[in-house]
Amino acid sequence: MTMANRTFQAINPATGERLEPAFAVATEDDVARACILASEAFEAYARTSPEARAAFLRAIADGLESGGEEIVARAHVETALPLPRLRSELARTCAQLRLFAGVIEEGSWVDARIDTADPNRTPPKPDVRSMRRPLGPVAVFGASNFPLAFSTAGGDTASALAAGNPVIVKAHPAHPGTSDLVARVIAASIERCALPRGTFALLFDDGIEVGQSLVRHPAIRAVGFTGSRRGGEALMRLAAQRPDPIPVYAEMSSVNPVIVFPDALRERATSIADGLHASFTLGVGQFCTNPGVVLVPVGTEGDAFVNLLTERTRATAAGAMLTPSISNAYREGQASLAKHGAELVARGSDGTFAASGQAALWQVAAAGTLAEPNLLEEVFGPSTLVVRYADLAEVERFVQALDGQLTATVHALPEELRDHEQLVALLATKVGRLVANQFPTGVEVSHAMVHGGPFPATSDGRSTSVGTHAIERFTRYVAYQNWPDDALPEELRHANPRRVWRRET
Amino acid sequence: MTMANRTFQAINPATGERLEPAFAVATEDDVARACILASEAFEAYARTSPEARAAFLRAIADGLESGGEEIVARAHVETALPLPRLRSELARTCAQLRLFAGVIEEGSWVDARIDTADPNRTPPKPDVRSMRRPLGPVAVFGASNFPLAFSTAGGDTASALAAGNPVIVKAHPAHPGTSDLVARVIAASIERCALPRGTFALLFDDGIEVGQSLVRHPAIRAVGFTGSRRGGEALMRLAAQRPDPIPVYAEMSSVNPVIVFPDALRERATSIADGLHASFTLGVGQFCTNPGVVLVPVGTEGDAFVNLLTERTRATAAGAMLTPSISNAYREGQASLAKHGAELVARGSDGTFAASGQAALWQVAAAGTLAEPNLLEEVFGPSTLVVRYADLAEVERFVQALDGQLTATVHALPEELRDHEQLVALLATKVGRLVANQFPTGVEVSHAMVHGGPFPATSDGRSTSVGTHAIERFTRYVAYQNWPDDALPEELRHANPRRVWRRET
Repeated sequence: MTMANRTFQAINPATGERLEPAFAVATEDDVARACILASEAFEAYARTSPEARAAFLRAIADGLESGGEEIVARAHVETALPLPRLRSELARTCAQLRLFAGVIEEGSWVDARIDTADPNRTPPKPDVRSMRRPLGPVAVFGASNFPLAFSTAGGDTASALAAGNPVIVKAHPAHPGTSDLVARVIAASIERCALPRGTFALLFDDGIEVGQSLVRHPAIRAVGFTGSRRGGEALMRLAAQRPDPIPVYAEMSSVNPVIVFPDALRERATSIADGLHASFTLGVGQFCTNPGVVLVPVGTEGDAFVNLLTERTRATAAGAMLTPSISNAYREGQASLAKHGAELVARGSDGTFAASGQAALWQVAAAGTLAEPNLLEEVFGPSTLVVRYADLAEVERFVQALDGQLTATVHALPEELRDHEQLVALLATKVGRLVANQFPTGVEVSHAMVHGGPFPATSDGRSTSVGTHAIERFTRYVAYQNWPDDALPEELRHANPRRVWRRET
Repeated sequence: MTMANRTFQAINPATGERLEPAFAVATEDDVARACILASEAFEAYARTSPEARAAFLRAIADGLESGGEEIVARAHVETALPLPRLRSELARTCAQLRLFAGVIEEGSWVDARIDTADPNRTPPKPDVRSMRRPLGPVAVFGASNFPLAFSTAGGDTASALAAGNPVIVKAHPAHPGTSDLVARVIAASIERCALPRGTFALLFDDGIEVGQSLVRHPAIRAVGFTGSRRGGEALMRLAAQRPDPIPVYAEMSSVNPVIVFPDALRERATSIADGLHASFTLGVGQFCTNPGVVLVPVGTEGDAFVNLLTERTRATAAGAMLTPSISNAYREGQASLAKHGAELVARGSDGTFAASGQAALWQVAAAGTLAEPNLLEEVFGPSTLVVRYADLAEVERFVQALDGQLTATVHALPEELRDHEQLVALLATKVGRLVANQFPTGVEVSHAMVHGGPFPATSDGRSTSVGTHAIERFTRYVAYQNWPDDALPEELRHANPRRVWRRET
């Protein structure tokens, strides 16, 4: 058994300062202990009532709110994200926990189905009832860019816990202190709600070994991840190479193309430029739904639009990025755009942060992106690439060649959408979410949201990591045939004591 | 480009006779052509109305019924399955196609959700609507043991076509003639319904290359397979190694344990023995839900039960198995049971078929299976292994060590289930379907059915390959934000012209 006996500290990305305290890297023993406890907890936790789990999720939300200012202050020094943004992220995180509490209390999400028996049929028709059941312990990887909403008590954790699965989080090394504070709130909620101790655990590592051990551990039944394509693909490979492969839900990489149609451009160039600039520079461009590619027609109206973007980009102040390595990767991404034939149109002002992110506007002809797919790789930061197209046939070729994306946005008049129905239908096959005449950043946590999309946007384009559909990822259908009524889960009993919506045939 | 220029013929497993005609092994060109046609067809087929797809599925069912006697006669000589069984399998296949036709006409399966906008909220809440959409071309592998219901127009094909995906079937080499007749019915239905030619294709191969090329082809978006664990795992690896990994739904391997509780045994030994014997010898034991392991208490009542099974096994006539290689694998499975410490209790009579299957009853102490997991590997054929347990604590250890299964069956009095709630809960974590006081063979095609289960029962334990939930496998959620009403799919439009159930918030 390796005992790592190693610690690491977070770094303030605005100042470069090393932050106290140090956090101990989890050992193999720690991983194994967390997995065994989670496995033991699963038996009891999976059988808790929805009310018990809802109370648990609400206790976490209440605890996050009580400790909110301390959590937000720590997140601020670890991530350089502004305090108002972190306060609203905390509110989002709490709302998300409470939304899932409501979903499981209401109960219809289990998709209860009942086929009643017909003993007179030849052969006799059995009574079969089925519903969603939890999968087992889930490993969740905290994300760098959402220290609260996509980390320790974020969407993956909330949805996995709601469904009845214990969770082990690997804290993102950029915000261990924030993760620790949130984990303490979860631990206190477990105690308050008298749930098994193994229902939740947090592990630290500034490298990749702990995450690898976790994904390989036999007790783990599924993985949730938000991060880089390289990281996500590594987890997909590890999970596929297990003796018993397990599902990986990795949200990885997307350039979120925006297509500006000619008539819409003619009518609303300024408002589109304003919205687009705000969207690609929001949060120093550190959103998975950042619009990284914008299709704009060639010609004078397109040129004028690029000029509008140019002015706005030049007037953009630099921001501190989440970590020095993200800032370095952003610079490399910029160099890659230049190397692969994009023209630098404008830059924002430069910053003096330890991890600076300077806004940038790039341009290339559509033919260039078709010849050079590297131009369509995600650049994580406040940069966007304007792709100039000659006509909508060229846009169609562009879309045809496009990889899977989280989102695609069109700015178009209603008749332009109608006239190009086939192009839009093609676009829909490439993305998880289509946006019309708005911008892709800002992902509503709701019942209809789809934050997913075909590979490489995610590892599993069938699902979503935001919104209430996310709970389905950590479940499987289980059927009960000819099962005694009082031994059935409540949702499937004759009397329907939970009064859930059911399909009875 | 390799041109295989090779043919093969089916073999009558009862007589060993080689059957005319020969079928040409698909070339790389054939695979590529089918995939490109499917890809082209997807754009149009995905946008067909549910009524158009329902009419197509019903046309296939009608065609299968019209050509039924020819299809059944050919299947009989290719598989040695009895004519009445094949007639009922044909009826099941047609009922399955019509069930999916009804599901898509009714329309609620798309899970339409609408979050209405709130422009007065800060930030403004957008209008977001989502529903299930098809994935793209699906590769389906025909199964040896269901030449109709799990093959060319079987459950995978029906559910993939229903959802709006083109399908390419790799015919099982044991019944190419049956596959060809069914494919002609599908081709005629495509013509009758004026659908794109690439909506369906059938490819032949008596080896593995065509299937491999198919799973590797960029146009293929998902795979459906029913067969051996080795075959399924090979496809899982291939799909995971693609530059863009795709989902594989492989139904592979299960011993479907039956637990006979002491009090139930005391009350109903004879009826349990009758039902169990019928279940494990049904169709020469060639069902994925064949009960391959039976847990029986030690002691005189258990001994008497084994004697009942012994009598019935001895009286079992041999049957022709599906193929000579399945018959060989069955013999090897028997040898493996002997080698790993099981005791041969009884054999049925021997047959003179080219591919014979002789019933067999084996026995071992529960401790033996815990020490030797090889005893719990699937033996495909009319054989079952009685595992004698000392007490229910030993059953719990057995269940704890159990791999994922399609089904588990308990024969128990209601109070026995109540008294051993924890054991039953543990059992539920291992299977897709729990059966009480019935037998696992006979898988109802219905809304509540789950024919799935954790690995290695299937590659993806979250889903089912039988029943209406199966359609979900070949879909993904797509969201439309602020999308013009008349450009939305009908299910999401304000007026709800299809009148589907929706979640509106």
